[in-house]
Amino acid sequence: MKKYEHGGRIYDKEVRLDFSANINPYGMPNGVKEAIVNGINQYHLYPDDDVTALREAIAKAEGVSTESVICGNGASDLIYRLCDSLRPKKACVLAPTFSEYEKALCSAGCEVSYLELKEEKQFRFHMELLSDLPGETDVFFLCNPNNPVGAVLTSEELEQVIIECTKKDIFLVLDECFLDFMEDHDAYSGKKFLQIEEYTSRVFLLKAFTKLYGMAGIRLGYGICQNKKLLDSMHFHGPAWNVSTPAQFAGLAALKEQEYVKTTRKTIETERKYLESELQKLGYKVYPSSVNYILFQAPQGLASHCLKHGILIRTCENYVGLSRHHFRIAVKLREDNETLIQCMRKFQK
Amino acid sequence: MKKYEHGGRIYDKEVRLDFSANINPYGMPNGVKEAIVNGINQYHLYPDDDVTALREAIAKAEGVSTESVICGNGASDLIYRLCDSLRPKKACVLAPTFSEYEKALCSAGCEVSYLELKEEKQFRFHMELLSDLPGETDVFFLCNPNNPVGAVLTSEELEQVIIECTKKDIFLVLDECFLDFMEDHDAYSGKKFLQIEEYTSRVFLLKAFTKLYGMAGIRLGYGICQNKKLLDSMHFHGPAWNVSTPAQFAGLAALKEQEYVKTTRKTIETERKYLESELQKLGYKVYPSSVNYILFQAPQGLASHCLKHGILIRTCENYVGLSRHHFRIAVKLREDNETLIQCMRKFQK
Repeated sequence: MKKYEHGGRIYDKEVRLDFSANINPYGMPNGVKEAIVNGINQYHLYPDDDVTALREAIAKAEGVSTESVICGNGASDLIYRLCDSLRPKKACVLAPTFSEYEKALCSAGCEVSYLELKEEKQFRFHMELLSDLPGETDVFFLCNPNNPVGAVLTSEELEQVIIECTKKDIFLVLDECFLDFMEDHDAYSGKKFLQIEEYTSRVFLLKAFTKLYGMAGIRLGYGICQNKKLLDSMHFHGPAWNVSTPAQFAGLAALKEQEYVKTTRKTIETERKYLESELQKLGYKVYPSSVNYILFQAPQGLASHCLKHGILIRTCENYVGLSRHHFRIAVKLREDNETLIQCMRKFQK
Repeated sequence: MKKYEHGGRIYDKEVRLDFSANINPYGMPNGVKEAIVNGINQYHLYPDDDVTALREAIAKAEGVSTESVICGNGASDLIYRLCDSLRPKKACVLAPTFSEYEKALCSAGCEVSYLELKEEKQFRFHMELLSDLPGETDVFFLCNPNNPVGAVLTSEELEQVIIECTKKDIFLVLDECFLDFMEDHDAYSGKKFLQIEEYTSRVFLLKAFTKLYGMAGIRLGYGICQNKKLLDSMHFHGPAWNVSTPAQFAGLAALKEQEYVKTTRKTIETERKYLESELQKLGYKVYPSSVNYILFQAPQGLASHCLKHGILIRTCENYVGLSRHHFRIAVKLREDNETLIQCMRKFQK
């Protein structure tokens, strides 16, 4: 059985600073912490398995109907339920991209092919790849912004993808788990296409609280989809009570954290630019990102050098299409970013 | 798509007292609450997806190897992973029993048949039923003590079941989620059979923190199984990071709550006897239980009468094999139990 690795594996190592997981460097907002603590006397009860209050709040925040919102034990729970519901025979994913799609697809007995992103295109998805999308594909997982690259499609490009998928009768899963780190995220979101009748039943939008609200340990993701039959099937294809009560309370509180999100977006933009420039000064090749992580190319051995200094960065050799020369780092706060760069400078010498 | 109902659905009703969910009436122990609150500054990080510390603690408490322990987002998460891993073609469940088995089996495309428990045998599993277990069965889900009945098999009966399953080449999933409410639970557990070589790869023991430690909102279950290949497959057939960090901390703290568990067992035994006797005085037929819930037969309309008084009891008509005359109540503390009985007395008059 193939081994799938992720960032954030800090439990079997000595890690002082974790740059391997792409979570908000401000940590969990105080309002969310308070909501979890204040709910402590209700955790003996079963969670609301309809997740009603939280789905209503998400729907309001997203400007969609409550019926079109589904919550999961992290976005990855929804990826599995999607695959078990769609039961695709052939699927397509980007290479490189987040590995849970392939894992969930294989788990559902599906054959997976890759749309290979090109190094010379900076691993950005480009429209010529659309013609490589096999016609017999049942489902296409598009991560936008893609992980681990961080590049985002324009709204026009995204529409081209959706048109192509519609033409080829391919169900599109659009993972926007990192999109909300961008100031002008709305302009890039596929949400507007969900309202268009011909796309409405064939697009699933995936989002998460995990990253933006620094809640990775709590597990909370959600999806937006107008295909009621698919959502019913997703409820069926997975355990009841999958969203814990702390997660439901945390999500409700998180949606009120508008200042925190604003500050986050500003900081991420500034700090990403700082890190990109410093990585380039070190002679590393940096691939353009719009969000809170950066993919770059550097000499082999960089990750183990950093780990010796207690800093964990993401080696990317287990991503299809990347090599042992590729690394991904999260964008953190200035002090931590400086510590990382200083550590990397020592590797240079 | 068939609708599966559970107890504990208090979110769409006015409920003052919930007798429909079988959770520890003492609520979550203080030590567990403290552990969840004390961990608040670590929930921004991804959970340990190997669940190492908690699996080690469970292994120690259960006297098994850490490698044989798998944790899930509630026991129901493990039921789904089991079905997705075993991919059985034909399965057998009791009727009545917990409905998540059938739901997970159907989700995995499996055909489900029933071993019908007999009213005249008080819905207790009896050995004559073993000959009804079809030879072509791939997996048999045995809930012991069974939900919603509460009857438990003797160790000798359980061994007969295991021998029969081995003979017929049937994988046995033994759900003991309620067993630990019994004083002498060890005598009834199938755990000892896991060590016997011929059974070792074909038995999966399912357990949960949910009920015994009053942690239903947190979601935490676990399994014990010596079949390493199956456990690997279960990890593959489901999302990463399925056990949240609060759940991992809560589980570690719960295992220290030995006094709480002792008191619980004593109270449950006393209060179950009280409730059984009071239900009989009301003229209801009570089916023998060894744990923290009671199945009984009463005139139709009892549940809606109780709900008018803010008390939720579990109607059982959606259990295969039961009717609208069957109800299940959890065993709670004396004051609540008295309130329930008083309310039921009014239904009589």
